[in-house]
Amino acid sequence: MFIDVSKTSPTQIIGDTGAKLRKLTETIERLHVRGATRPLEKIIHKVYPADLASVLASIPEVHVAPIFHTIPEAELAADVLIQVNDRVQRIILAETPDAQLTPILEKLPPDERVLLIREMEPERAERLLSELEKASQKELEKLLSYHPDTAGGIMTTEFFDLTGDTTADQAIRAVREHAEVEMVYYLYVTDAEHKLEGVISIRQLLLAKPQALLRDVMNARIITVSTDTSRESVAALVDKYRLLAIPVVDESQHLVGMITVDDVIDVLETETTQDMLRMAGTDKAEILTHSTFRIAWIRLPWLLAAFIGGLAATWIVRNFEGVLTQVIALGAFLPVVMGMAGNVGVQTATVTVRGLATGSLDLRDVWGVLYKELRVGLILGVFYGFTLGLFGWFMFGSLDLGGVVGFTILGNMTGAALLAVALPMLFQRIGADPAIATGPFVTTAIDVFGVLNYFMLATLLLDLPGAGS
Amino acid sequence: MFIDVSKTSPTQIIGDTGAKLRKLTETIERLHVRGATRPLEKIIHKVYPADLASVLASIPEVHVAPIFHTIPEAELAADVLIQVNDRVQRIILAETPDAQLTPILEKLPPDERVLLIREMEPERAERLLSELEKASQKELEKLLSYHPDTAGGIMTTEFFDLTGDTTADQAIRAVREHAEVEMVYYLYVTDAEHKLEGVISIRQLLLAKPQALLRDVMNARIITVSTDTSRESVAALVDKYRLLAIPVVDESQHLVGMITVDDVIDVLETETTQDMLRMAGTDKAEILTHSTFRIAWIRLPWLLAAFIGGLAATWIVRNFEGVLTQVIALGAFLPVVMGMAGNVGVQTATVTVRGLATGSLDLRDVWGVLYKELRVGLILGVFYGFTLGLFGWFMFGSLDLGGVVGFTILGNMTGAALLAVALPMLFQRIGADPAIATGPFVTTAIDVFGVLNYFMLATLLLDLPGAGS
Repeated sequence: MFIDVSKTSPTQIIGDTGAKLRKLTETIERLHVRGATRPLEKIIHKVYPADLASVLASIPEVHVAPIFHTIPEAELAADVLIQVNDRVQRIILAETPDAQLTPILEKLPPDERVLLIREMEPERAERLLSELEKASQKELEKLLSYHPDTAGGIMTTEFFDLTGDTTADQAIRAVREHAEVEMVYYLYVTDAEHKLEGVISIRQLLLAKPQALLRDVMNARIITVSTDTSRESVAALVDKYRLLAIPVVDESQHLVGMITVDDVIDVLETETTQDMLRMAGTDKAEILTHSTFRIAWIRLPWLLAAFIGGLAATWIVRNFEGVLTQVIALGAFLPVVMGMAGNVGVQTATVTVRGLATGSLDLRDVWGVLYKELRVGLILGVFYGFTLGLFGWFMFGSLDLGGVVGFTILGNMTGAALLAVALPMLFQRIGADPAIATGPFVTTAIDVFGVLNYFMLATLLLDLPGAGS
Repeated sequence: MFIDVSKTSPTQIIGDTGAKLRKLTETIERLHVRGATRPLEKIIHKVYPADLASVLASIPEVHVAPIFHTIPEAELAADVLIQVNDRVQRIILAETPDAQLTPILEKLPPDERVLLIREMEPERAERLLSELEKASQKELEKLLSYHPDTAGGIMTTEFFDLTGDTTADQAIRAVREHAEVEMVYYLYVTDAEHKLEGVISIRQLLLAKPQALLRDVMNARIITVSTDTSRESVAALVDKYRLLAIPVVDESQHLVGMITVDDVIDVLETETTQDMLRMAGTDKAEILTHSTFRIAWIRLPWLLAAFIGGLAATWIVRNFEGVLTQVIALGAFLPVVMGMAGNVGVQTATVTVRGLATGSLDLRDVWGVLYKELRVGLILGVFYGFTLGLFGWFMFGSLDLGGVVGFTILGNMTGAALLAVALPMLFQRIGADPAIATGPFVTTAIDVFGVLNYFMLATLLLDLPGAGS
């Protein structure tokens, strides 16, 4: 939902996230604590909903619901409720009785109503749903039937459509008469059965001759999505074509909804969060506000890859126990040998995954990028390998040992860089999410191969029977 | 820059990133290889610029510049050039001679021209700048004087302002007469000296009485940013207030520019990329297309934290050499002990940093979140500690050893979870970027404390003189 700046004339906008907002927060909190309800109501009326949302996010949690409840109009309360952050929203939902919540729900735009209902426990959602007006109820049930990750799941059903034989002048009058309808920048042109025929922006409407038919001035080559288009694709299209909104049609081209650019910003944020969580080796759905057991349950299987990899490394070291026993210093260098390769791996994987996601890198680059990472890995490996080699030599007085750790670092850092660029690109190639490659696979592979390489080099380079510590 | 859908009537929009786009790509490539210039020009005319940009991203690199050069009009070429990805843009810039580039530069909107000039080597930028018309040249120099991370650095100077004594009717006529000016949704109202007085949306203009003065219908409480506001704050404001554009003013409130929501989407993407790179422990400026030495140079210092941490761990192990010599199996479990804690740390740190960035988590939550992570860490630690303890017992036949690795995993996973939530929140509290906390600090601290804890527990729990492998 977009907010039309001009609607806000009577309210005061902070437009600042610093000092002014802190002052407003203090004032509101003071009035609340003093129980000065009238002055509080007065100030709440003068404050812009998004600012009130910021205030609620920065006061002690016990005050959130009581202050929210002093908002006298359901419409303003609805505006605030959709703009507070998730944490504050949960508090408000939990502490607002159904009877008070229903009128607020009625005032919400359909897409926001769906988001809110989805946050609730099924029983409460059911109960509130039955309290709504018949029409809203039916519409809501329809919207809830779409998967939340699809266009149907994020669209609003409030849009503006007119038939093609409307004149520009009539259309302008229609816009004037529907001043209360959600901000329209695009007018959709449909036939008698609401099949989408074209689009015209309000600005184009102004440019058209008053008697021109919409059919003749509209743009008939229009970008649409269907209700089951993934929200990721919706965001990509709005971003690519720089649209302010995109229409949603059903399988017979009937206009059923619209998605605005501000919702697309939210989708992009969510998708990025999911990418980051996957890279970190946890599920895309994890948030810190889940219950303890749910978080643990989400993370547990993702850690399995690291666990199996760790056991494999253990098994490898065990097989080289003879070497380790003779040169106990090898154990001392194990943490730094593993750590350096792991770090280069995370650096490289992150750059690769993010590059693929933003399009600054594509699969055609694979050989060039591999070659470049090979060289970067070699440079970093030579620098840190040489430095660590010196440390090994001086700390343990063995040039051979220095050579082993030095060459291991060189090999492992180079290998890690290569693996961390190759795996995500391979995942992308086979149609899997490259972000998933990073967490469990890249990290674990680097650990296992790294340890193997270390002990193989040690066996090769150290003149074992005589090289004991 | 926004594209007005209605402007595109004669062109064909793919609106799809799949099959249709591949077909178009094949057609264009075939025509180019055959040297069929005329049909190629014809098809290029019919294709939407954003789609042509996608085509250029998926053809072999040698064909990119030649196909781009077949675009006959500078205006269309300009539209395509700002919509291709970074890689394609670099190819085109490198392979297009100055004489051909100048007319394209002239057609670019000011903000896009700045972005492009900033990508070039200084000498070429200087040369091209001197080729531009005097007016564009002066404007460009002014824009280039702003820091790229500020509102001044990303704003466009193409906006629409009228004085407050203009009537709604006159304003509508003015919009009609300036059909060529970049898409306007907001009209800015200024005084005779271009000081910003208010804003009105085109839709509000339609709703106003024809004779009403803009001064009387405009919204005077307007959110503005100054030229030196950080682009991050600009994005936060546009996102918070759900604006389509935000005006930029100088220190005396003169309107000097405007930033549109599509540019804000780009800013949000860039900021997220920087966050991810910082979390991975590399500089925010790294991209894989930098030169090899530059990438190595960027990563080298970030790896220093891991290196020093690694050396510290080495030093710790060395101090426990006696224990390791007696129970060589401790070395075998070192990789898995380090790996598990590191993984939990990355999971937790990512959830925390992202939560703070998106506002789903704020500093007020710190004790609740710490307590929750403590419990999550304990659950995961008990599960994997018990499992690994069993492995230790069976693999090496020592219940004591199993106990050591089990309790170490329990302690280290719990500690890692706590550290990974506490450090980013502490960084946020003291005004530093919480993303920076993750890469070098959290990871290194987990490694060092983890190793220390492991060997201390081993010393405590193993009855050393008799517990040799």
